[in-house]
Amino acid sequence: MGEASKPAANAAGADADAGASIHAIAAEIFPLCRSITGDGVRETLRRLGRHIPLDVVEVESGSPACDWTVPDEWTIRAAYIENAAGERIVDFRANPLHVMSYSVAVDEVMPLAELKRHIFTLPEQPDLIPYRTSYYEPRWGFCMAHRQLETLPDGLYRAVIDADLAPGHLTYGECYLPGETSDEVLLSAHICHPGMANDNCSGLALLTFLAKKLAGERRRYSYRFLFAPGTIGALTWLARNGAAVSRIRHGLVLSCVGDGGGPYYKRSRRGNAAIDRAMDHVLRLNSAAPEIVDFFPYGYDERQFCSPGFDLPVGLFQRSRYASFPEYHTSADAMNFITPGHLAESYGMVREALLVIENDRVYRNLFPKGEPQLGRRGLYDALGGDPKGAEKNIAMLWVLNLSDGEHSLLDIAERAKMPFATIFATATLLERHKLIAPVA
Amino acid sequence: MGEASKPAANAAGADADAGASIHAIAAEIFPLCRSITGDGVRETLRRLGRHIPLDVVEVESGSPACDWTVPDEWTIRAAYIENAAGERIVDFRANPLHVMSYSVAVDEVMPLAELKRHIFTLPEQPDLIPYRTSYYEPRWGFCMAHRQLETLPDGLYRAVIDADLAPGHLTYGECYLPGETSDEVLLSAHICHPGMANDNCSGLALLTFLAKKLAGERRRYSYRFLFAPGTIGALTWLARNGAAVSRIRHGLVLSCVGDGGGPYYKRSRRGNAAIDRAMDHVLRLNSAAPEIVDFFPYGYDERQFCSPGFDLPVGLFQRSRYASFPEYHTSADAMNFITPGHLAESYGMVREALLVIENDRVYRNLFPKGEPQLGRRGLYDALGGDPKGAEKNIAMLWVLNLSDGEHSLLDIAERAKMPFATIFATATLLERHKLIAPVA
Amino acid sequence: MGEASKPAANAAGADADAGASIHAIAAEIFPLCRSITGDGVRETLRRLGRHIPLDVVEVESGSPACDWTVPDEWTIRAAYIENAAGERIVDFRANPLHVMSYSVAVDEVMPLAELKRHIFTLPEQPDLIPYRTSYYEPRWGFCMAHRQLETLPDGLYRAVIDADLAPGHLTYGECYLPGETSDEVLLSAHICHPGMANDNCSGLALLTFLAKKLAGERRRYSYRFLFAPGTIGALTWLARNGAAVSRIRHGLVLSCVGDGGGPYYKRSRRGNAAIDRAMDHVLRLNSAAPEIVDFFPYGYDERQFCSPGFDLPVGLFQRSRYASFPEYHTSADAMNFITPGHLAESYGMVREALLVIENDRVYRNLFPKGEPQLGRRGLYDALGGDPKGAEKNIAMLWVLNLSDGEHSLLDIAERAKMPFATIFATATLLERHKLIAPVA
Repeated sequence: MGEASKPAANAAGADADAGASIHAIAAEIFPLCRSITGDGVRETLRRLGRHIPLDVVEVESGSPACDWTVPDEWTIRAAYIENAAGERIVDFRANPLHVMSYSVAVDEVMPLAELKRHIFTLPEQPDLIPYRTSYYEPRWGFCMAHRQLETLPDGLYRAVIDADLAPGHLTYGECYLPGETSDEVLLSAHICHPGMANDNCSGLALLTFLAKKLAGERRRYSYRFLFAPGTIGALTWLARNGAAVSRIRHGLVLSCVGDGGGPYYKRSRRGNAAIDRAMDHVLRLNSAAPEIVDFFPYGYDERQFCSPGFDLPVGLFQRSRYASFPEYHTSADAMNFITPGHLAESYGMVREALLVIENDRVYRNLFPKGEPQLGRRGLYDALGGDPKGAEKNIAMLWVLNLSDGEHSLLDIAERAKMPFATIFATATLLERHKLIAPVA
Repeated sequence: MGEASKPAANAAGADADAGASIHAIAAEIFPLCRSITGDGVRETLRRLGRHIPLDVVEVESGSPACDWTVPDEWTIRAAYIENAAGERIVDFRANPLHVMSYSVAVDEVMPLAELKRHIFTLPEQPDLIPYRTSYYEPRWGFCMAHRQLETLPDGLYRAVIDADLAPGHLTYGECYLPGETSDEVLLSAHICHPGMANDNCSGLALLTFLAKKLAGERRRYSYRFLFAPGTIGALTWLARNGAAVSRIRHGLVLSCVGDGGGPYYKRSRRGNAAIDRAMDHVLRLNSAAPEIVDFFPYGYDERQFCSPGFDLPVGLFQRSRYASFPEYHTSADAMNFITPGHLAESYGMVREALLVIENDRVYRNLFPKGEPQLGRRGLYDALGGDPKGAEKNIAMLWVLNLSDGEHSLLDIAERAKMPFATIFATATLLERHKLIAPVA
Repeated sequence: MGEASKPAANAAGADADAGASIHAIAAEIFPLCRSITGDGVRETLRRLGRHIPLDVVEVESGSPACDWTVPDEWTIRAAYIENAAGERIVDFRANPLHVMSYSVAVDEVMPLAELKRHIFTLPEQPDLIPYRTSYYEPRWGFCMAHRQLETLPDGLYRAVIDADLAPGHLTYGECYLPGETSDEVLLSAHICHPGMANDNCSGLALLTFLAKKLAGERRRYSYRFLFAPGTIGALTWLARNGAAVSRIRHGLVLSCVGDGGGPYYKRSRRGNAAIDRAMDHVLRLNSAAPEIVDFFPYGYDERQFCSPGFDLPVGLFQRSRYASFPEYHTSADAMNFITPGHLAESYGMVREALLVIENDRVYRNLFPKGEPQLGRRGLYDALGGDPKGAEKNIAMLWVLNLSDGEHSLLDIAERAKMPFATIFATATLLERHKLIAPVA
């Protein structure tokens, strides 16, 4: 984020502690062993719930979730490999990535060759532990650094995973902030990834901080923050919340918002929803080269929100696009990969987009025939003939000219190539002088 | 204007004297001390009225003008600064730019330091006199070359402005040329700038010459030429001429059409009005890189014509865009800054655009099934097999193929990438051969 | 055609002999002296009729053909120039290009200077014989290499053209392959050019081979192959086949499809017909830089099919655009200018476009709320967390997401930037698993 970042910086400036606060929340939940079900999710929600009013919802295994079914709950108590000397060479307590998520229980001694069939490494990134899951096929596995695997001498090893996969619950959290209208803004972050900072402690922490801030502000919209496991959590929530779904007017999925890449925005399936236009505007203000792409049907839970039966106006905001950075889905996605500065920038951009969403509206010029005389009202530099003089008044002229009952403030900002915040402030000034009035 | 200027050159060729004639008219009105009211405007209109039938309209101070009010009239009789020796170091009789327009009367002796608070210069263009106004705030001031100001010794100076600001009139001129229909083309140039050649003696002179020429031609449209002071003059005219306003089908504001820049066209607020398409077509024919921009709500009187309550199809034609050239609003915008050649080019482009406006229409192919046999009618090279042979007939094929009751001649010219004049001539030929007929 | 040519190669792969077979058909008809009427056309149709069921239609001279009239038939028996020694210096039996098509009879002895008024050469391509015609003006002429002309000594020469221009017939051929519906695909190639391989033995041969192949396949559409003389043949066919014309849903004109240029596609007059979109898709898959242009009203018989009274969805497919290659309309357009490889590529692209035309349709996702669980149905890699894993399933996700009753398979292929064949195969798989169903 370079010179053009002023508006975001300003917006975030009102929350000078934003970056540090978000980073601290992320750090707190980082080490937990989350999966699509289980106590890791519960503990994460418990900690986020210290900051905001959070409803924790438990949905029984076997419950329908659109075309899917809530799976059995996975409880992991221990996962390690011992060598012949009884030394634990990997242990999920050191890093939750060491155990493949949803591994079934095992306690077997086997030769290295056989053990290797259950071990995942990244030969091209030999120092990193990969992230692997097997939610819907009963298997077990360990993940470790390739360099460590190569050092293991032949011999017998004991693989121990003390886990249950049994009827239980899927857990998700919701924070609902009622606004002046019951129309909703949905803000969602997946909560199922263990031990990775950018993916997605960053998203969970940013939204938690945002909810805390918004709770203290006037809100035209009602806001719903959703922290649910990826795919199955979103499907479960969608299946159970038809009324809320029907009230969603705008939405964002957040993931990987703590690194220095991007900014990246993936439009909703509709492509021209208000949130798409707002994010486009904000990202272009904040970056010389934002990456803004059309919807595609893989990625995060925008897949579900934007399935054809829902087709919600929900986009995805990231810094680096998922799977595009070497730390992605590895142990290198640690707390030092995300920074308070980048988190503050991401927070600022989301706030700016919400400023648009909350305040974009259509006005009507009450003196539409010719320009109203701004000078008489103290709104205009009275000394003509100076080419610089006019520039200060350009925002007023744009709002007056395009406030014809057709163009919204965002339309005007885009047309004038000015920040929405400037156009919004100008409209507020002109409304105060009774030169424009909002269209009912 | 390079190689591609043939059509304009041809159009202007019919008026071989165009450039010289326009330049002479500009030269005649150049030295007058115009402002938004006063005798300078009256004298300018009197001289233009020698060439064309011009109605001079006087509107009383205090009259409503949309949201504005016609101001008091400014009468300037003398304006000079004397040094202690009684020498006039600046005098508005040498250059009307020396007095800030609408200066109130003054006759005071004061030290240089105090005098300087009333003097405007251009430190970065130290040899030029700037142009300054203060229409709506009672002040007085002089404009002079910065280099001259720097040579002034300390001491006492006498500042004399013999001026009245008192109830009187605002004056504008109209030339109306009735056509076959009462639908109007509005052609407007501001008349308020003193002692500057490009801005806007060039526009006033070009339109005067054009009116003189059009007066002797068959006209489908009625034409209204408006020479009014900027902003307040346009507002006054708009407020008093509702019936004429309602008949405007096309329009152009002209300013700074005598220098070698551009060509530049600023579209009407509608963006796709017929005049916008015609000017786009003509400028692209006449220049490899015309500057054609969307409407924006500052500039000349297109601001008023395109205010949302009028939203007239009126664009702005210039050579160099205002405020984009160093001579702008200075004494360097003198007669040697504009040339007969550039004025002739500008005139040619306006004429070509009016050729489009006058003649663009939709035809219907009377033999739409397959191509009609042009050879039988003597319209086609009878020797086939020659790849060059076909090219001569391409215009006929385009007109026949697209004359389906949907596409106008300009549509066809654009699609065929051919000059409108060629397509128009071709359509005339095909109509004579009863192959196409105009759609009623 | 480079790396991206796989789909075409595959499609053509099913017809491994395509290139060789098409080349052989072209070679067989190459030497014949075709014109817009006469035995050269009849003999060409007789030979093509050995491969496919071909109706040969004879239309009497004087018959109406839209705005035209079927001309007299031209019968050419001999055409040569003898020098004073009685040596034949040019003879149309050596190359049918030597006689200007539709030459009237002559048998005269004349000095070289007079003879030259009847001789066409290409001074800039001095070794090549040009192609010339004079269908609608009674003239006679010879075409020869400029270099040969320059060697002719002064003296007397005898010019002999033994030809009749008399009431007879215009001949064209049609091959109709009925399909599941009576909606038709029109595939047309002009048959009037003598002794040139690319223009248009290549088009005639490719379509003949294609008709032979399609005859043995299931066809949703009925196919009509038209081999008619340029312009007058198309007009004659259009005038006499109103019912067939009204059933045409898609069409292609083929010409010059055997050289290594292009691929080139000229859209139908409609510009966005299904065939336009299909050809655009296929050419972009098969070439990094296809030339795809909007309709223009000169070229081949798309001129007639796309005249405003018919406005059929018929485009033009070529390799090198006509008149763009030095061999065009000369004796250098010989059999060695076209290759089996290029013919096979062209054939593959046409087949791929027909694959789209035959199979493009709209489906509806039967599980539109969220993604259906593909893993449960054995359609999805069950091991998550691997960024590569998802890619294999992307086609399924695209089809599911966009099968909303609005988007066709081609829409989806374009949006997903995947070959139509991939999307079509994916849709077939998903339909088999009852996840999507075609919209009636």
